Amino acid sequence: MDVVEYIQANKAQFFADLKEWLAIPSISGDPAHHDDVRRSADWLAEYLRGQGFPTVEVWPTAGLPAVYAEWPAADPDAPSVLVYGHHDVQPVTPLEEWDTDPFTPVEQGDQLVARGTSDDKGQVFFHTLGLRANLAANGTDAPPVTIKLLVEGEEESGSVHFAELLTERRERLAADAVIISDTTMWSADVPSMCTGMRGLAEAEITLRGAEVDLHSGSFGGAVPNALHAMVELLGKLHDADGRVTVPGFYDDVVPLTDEERELFARLPFDEAGWLETAGNSRAAYGEAGFTTLERIWARPTAEINGLWGGHTGPGGKTIVPREAHAKLSFRLVAGQEPAKVRDAFVAWVEANAPAGVEVEVRTPGGGVRPCFSPIDSAGVAAARRAMEKAFGKEVLFTREGGSGPEADLADILEAPLVFVAVGLNDDRIHAPNEKVEMPLLLKGAEAAAYLWDELATALR
Amino acid sequence: MDVVEYIQANKAQFFADLKEWLAIPSISGDPAHHDDVRRSADWLAEYLRGQGFPTVEVWPTAGLPAVYAEWPAADPDAPSVLVYGHHDVQPVTPLEEWDTDPFTPVEQGDQLVARGTSDDKGQVFFHTLGLRANLAANGTDAPPVTIKLLVEGEEESGSVHFAELLTERRERLAADAVIISDTTMWSADVPSMCTGMRGLAEAEITLRGAEVDLHSGSFGGAVPNALHAMVELLGKLHDADGRVTVPGFYDDVVPLTDEERELFARLPFDEAGWLETAGNSRAAYGEAGFTTLERIWARPTAEINGLWGGHTGPGGKTIVPREAHAKLSFRLVAGQEPAKVRDAFVAWVEANAPAGVEVEVRTPGGGVRPCFSPIDSAGVAAARRAMEKAFGKEVLFTREGGSGPEADLADILEAPLVFVAVGLNDDRIHAPNEKVEMPLLLKGAEAAAYLWDELATALR
Repeated sequence: MDVVEYIQANKAQFFADLKEWLAIPSISGDPAHHDDVRRSADWLAEYLRGQGFPTVEVWPTAGLPAVYAEWPAADPDAPSVLVYGHHDVQPVTPLEEWDTDPFTPVEQGDQLVARGTSDDKGQVFFHTLGLRANLAANGTDAPPVTIKLLVEGEEESGSVHFAELLTERRERLAADAVIISDTTMWSADVPSMCTGMRGLAEAEITLRGAEVDLHSGSFGGAVPNALHAMVELLGKLHDADGRVTVPGFYDDVVPLTDEERELFARLPFDEAGWLETAGNSRAAYGEAGFTTLERIWARPTAEINGLWGGHTGPGGKTIVPREAHAKLSFRLVAGQEPAKVRDAFVAWVEANAPAGVEVEVRTPGGGVRPCFSPIDSAGVAAARRAMEKAFGKEVLFTREGGSGPEADLADILEAPLVFVAVGLNDDRIHAPNEKVEMPLLLKGAEAAAYLWDELATALR
Repeated sequence: MDVVEYIQANKAQFFADLKEWLAIPSISGDPAHHDDVRRSADWLAEYLRGQGFPTVEVWPTAGLPAVYAEWPAADPDAPSVLVYGHHDVQPVTPLEEWDTDPFTPVEQGDQLVARGTSDDKGQVFFHTLGLRANLAANGTDAPPVTIKLLVEGEEESGSVHFAELLTERRERLAADAVIISDTTMWSADVPSMCTGMRGLAEAEITLRGAEVDLHSGSFGGAVPNALHAMVELLGKLHDADGRVTVPGFYDDVVPLTDEERELFARLPFDEAGWLETAGNSRAAYGEAGFTTLERIWARPTAEINGLWGGHTGPGGKTIVPREAHAKLSFRLVAGQEPAKVRDAFVAWVEANAPAGVEVEVRTPGGGVRPCFSPIDSAGVAAARRAMEKAFGKEVLFTREGGSGPEADLADILEAPLVFVAVGLNDDRIHAPNEKVEMPLLLKGAEAAAYLWDELATALR
């Protein structure tokens, strides 16, 4: 029995089991549902035991529990691969916009509708079917790589205890690659793999002039105005080409390769439609020399997130404002370190400090390192072969502009990330009527079935 | 009996009468004291009748009453002069910081302490003594010019009905010059006259990008950021020399004459002390090529009074903000028209509109025209001679950086303003323990006594 035959033979049971899990309202962001999150972990643990995982444990955290399962390879020298997903889901408000109950999964044609179908229970689940298809096709009872499955319970509420969990359990989680199944493909017709996520650094600037707001008649024109100083300073943050002017800002950026740019360019991108999703933004706008997709996926930014000072209420108030405040954040790409970017920004502010005002720059710690897997790396290439075999066509590449707990996985476990996912951008994750395309979940299972053989060779 | 002899002979009664008026708590900003404001008007009207004014009327407004008095010249062809002051006073909070009761006038050495001593009852009052000294010295019962006295009751609460009153009573108020006695001199040792006040225009800018705040991971770097657009726009409002870049902004400005600059420069200005009064501002800062006094008195400004957009609360929020708002005001100097400046600013914003954002500029109507009396104009020169005769030394010139109802007097009555006042900047007006220097009030009366003869000649 080959992989496809196995999947076809078992798909009915697969979806029946998935629906049972989806019925548990594991909303981590709502304390009223925290017992449901724990119940979801227990349900999954029991299910994984039933699927044959030799080791299954529920791992407590200071918050909500994760589920860990391990299925060792027959060969003790085989590579180890960690699969990451999460079993908690988003809240369901506004409930009145759902056409069906969010925790009563319903099939509508090829779609399965319920909270968590795409983000992320459905995508965690295809690995169980994929692994069993792999074993069936290989006629063995152990996979060609040691498979470690880590299913978090707090992803939708900020993964606040995840880094701690990874650090504590680092030895058991050790892996040669981490498979992330919590993202999307370009479209059902254009299978793709994510190869990176932007990181984040933050900063806040305060400029102070006088100790009090001053009467602009008595003093205006002869003393520094903190808001003038702020617009003068931040007006220099980008040059006419939309590039960030902070010295060294781009030094460590891993440039896009010609091949990556060429593959990005082959994605059927509809800029007008994209602008609609961007709150009907009036135009694409950004760093010269890059396409919109390159800008959001592979180029770093310096963004003013908030700015305020002086009189912001109704009517006029003729003052010279004493203070001006700005909050900024930087999206970082492969090669950039949050701490180094923050230091460069602080130096830039100090070097460009306007006359007559006191300058304070704060850089809230931490940040998020970007994550990136080169398209020609062993893990990505192996996963691409598995995806292409499942989809029967060329698999392209995307990246993501934001970041999640994935950077922690790469940093703490010191392992390359490989994104294998079959969600779609129109799956309505975080919104009413979330759905998943059932044929794509089965394609995911098929790709996962091929993946372990590919990785056994590629990572050895 | 000459002017000085008359004043010396009558000063005791003068201060006794003034104290009676000062005891009325005519706080126009406090509705609980509005009856006191009306009582103050009635008291003044009765007093002026007693001083011999042939016509005395209490003029009602939609708010609090003004007092009008007229003493015609013997010669029907003599010029008419309107004297402006106000009989309402500031609130007295914080009361605990007063060393004596604010409405129980107390003499402390040369100072008379009470609310309204300097601003403005004391300065209105010296005109009564000055006029009678003039008549006594000339041995007549009618002044050499027709004197019209207008004492407002709402100056400390924004003169909200004053323009309406002036417009309604324009014919009776017609004058060849308006004497303003509601300002200050440089110091007791350096008598001076104000020759102008800056005007005001206001504007508000809104820039709009997307219809909603956008996730900076998903969209940052590829769509316009309304705050970036705002700092880019307003960062261009001043050039490196601190000059406003709006085309035509300075076109109508009446330049300072060499004589005026030379006279300003002779004022003993202590910049360090001035910076302390400016909320401990860190440095003088403004348009290149002008001194601090020139900047606040005789140069126009474009001031950002408030600026806001995006996330202004605690913590970080990684958004591309959809909107940015700015409130601005312009201090205007001699020659500039509020409407013309507003139009020039709107054109500048539109010409510099950043790409990808919708631009809205609102210019709240009205504004305040600057007022200005050239130092060599007939009225100013006549008043300077009167002041120099009273003080026995050269009188220098100042201006004021802000504006009050004075511009309405100049605009509606179409008459030149002449500032004759003896308040000091350390009189603590609007603050606890307001005082006036009694010898300076008598100097004011003396100058006023000489003024009518000077003006009879100068304005004819």
